[in-house]
Amino acid sequence: MDILPDFSGPQNASETDAVILAAGDFPTHPIPLGLLARAAEGRIICCDGAADRLLREGFTPLAVVGDGDSISPEARRRLSDCLHIESEQDTNDLSKAVRYAVSQGMRRLTILGATGRREDHTLGNISLLADYQARGLDVEMWTDYGVFTPATGCQTFASRAGQQFSVFCLDDAPLTLRDVRWPLEGRRITRWWQATLNEALTDTFRVETRGRIIVFRTYITL
Amino acid sequence: MDILPDFSGPQNASETDAVILAAGDFPTHPIPLGLLARAAEGRIICCDGAADRLLREGFTPLAVVGDGDSISPEARRRLSDCLHIESEQDTNDLSKAVRYAVSQGMRRLTILGATGRREDHTLGNISLLADYQARGLDVEMWTDYGVFTPATGCQTFASRAGQQFSVFCLDDAPLTLRDVRWPLEGRRITRWWQATLNEALTDTFRVETRGRIIVFRTYITL
Repeated sequence: MDILPDFSGPQNASETDAVILAAGDFPTHPIPLGLLARAAEGRIICCDGAADRLLREGFTPLAVVGDGDSISPEARRRLSDCLHIESEQDTNDLSKAVRYAVSQGMRRLTILGATGRREDHTLGNISLLADYQARGLDVEMWTDYGVFTPATGCQTFASRAGQQFSVFCLDDAPLTLRDVRWPLEGRRITRWWQATLNEALTDTFRVETRGRIIVFRTYITL
Repeated sequence: MDILPDFSGPQNASETDAVILAAGDFPTHPIPLGLLARAAEGRIICCDGAADRLLREGFTPLAVVGDGDSISPEARRRLSDCLHIESEQDTNDLSKAVRYAVSQGMRRLTILGATGRREDHTLGNISLLADYQARGLDVEMWTDYGVFTPATGCQTFASRAGQQFSVFCLDDAPLTLRDVRWPLEGRRITRWWQATLNEALTDTFRVETRGRIIVFRTYITL
């Protein structure tokens, strides 16, 4: 088992405009924790359900966004200067935080804490990456196990030999995978599991599709 | 917050033929733990990655299924009589355990421990429910937060007023939801999040679609 400390995807983490912390499991893996620490100086936007934990961990957010129901009176007092209440119910707190970031001119976003706890929230949050990309944002979601990246068209992904990855297709469009353990050539993927648990052979792999996909790369190599 | 101790879905848990324990997060919620306890007398089938933990928790499986790589020498010795090694790589350990159950004449299956840890495994496991249903199995997946049930056609789900639920569409077929907070009438769902975070109004709700769907009902009411 080998953690990838110099993991570099299409988005280089040091160039992110903001880290958005959602209210799922707070990160415990060194990679997402490192991304959070590097954003500590005024680049953390926090969903209100994650605000108390963020404060307990010693961070101060640039902004806290949400309906304000999930924050303690103590945290609310400490964060009153940066609390942005949005009570409309058509979007979830993650999307409200993304919208706030965009309103501040930010478009390169690193999402943390968006998986774990209720699985329907996890699924919803992962799929929202495709919507954010369609709006022109450069966005990735880093969990305790790997990184989710939305994509479409032809794209090269950074990898390491032996690194595991999965591809999830959101549309019924053929998928091609090259330079991987189990290549695909124009294959229709109609089940979420059908393009999972593949493996990179070298320092990049290629993905081609006309549809929307979400690629997950693990931190761990064999 | 109110746990649903008499939660009854399309499959009544006491009538299950076997509980299948996968190698994700071991259950901590009283509902899946109760299902595991009720199956303790010879009805637990365990993926090999979960065998050590199952033994530590004081349970003895009917069978352990998998490639045998994820089990300690000590557990392997204790479980040698019920260890079924399947090393083919075309299906994951959950599907191997389901296949074993079917080979024993079981078709009403309760899956536990299939979410948590690597998110691509979680997504794959959830989507496999639709495949198991297509093979005629009566299967549900119980997590620490709720229960996933595959469905198609017209179906009535048990619920409570205020209970949250989500629907995930695996095909591009219109979805109708009735007797719910936010009803849908023949709506095309092209994003995983689009039919999430709905709410039951009474003790049942109705779902209609020609496609494959997976319904998630939370344990928690407001």
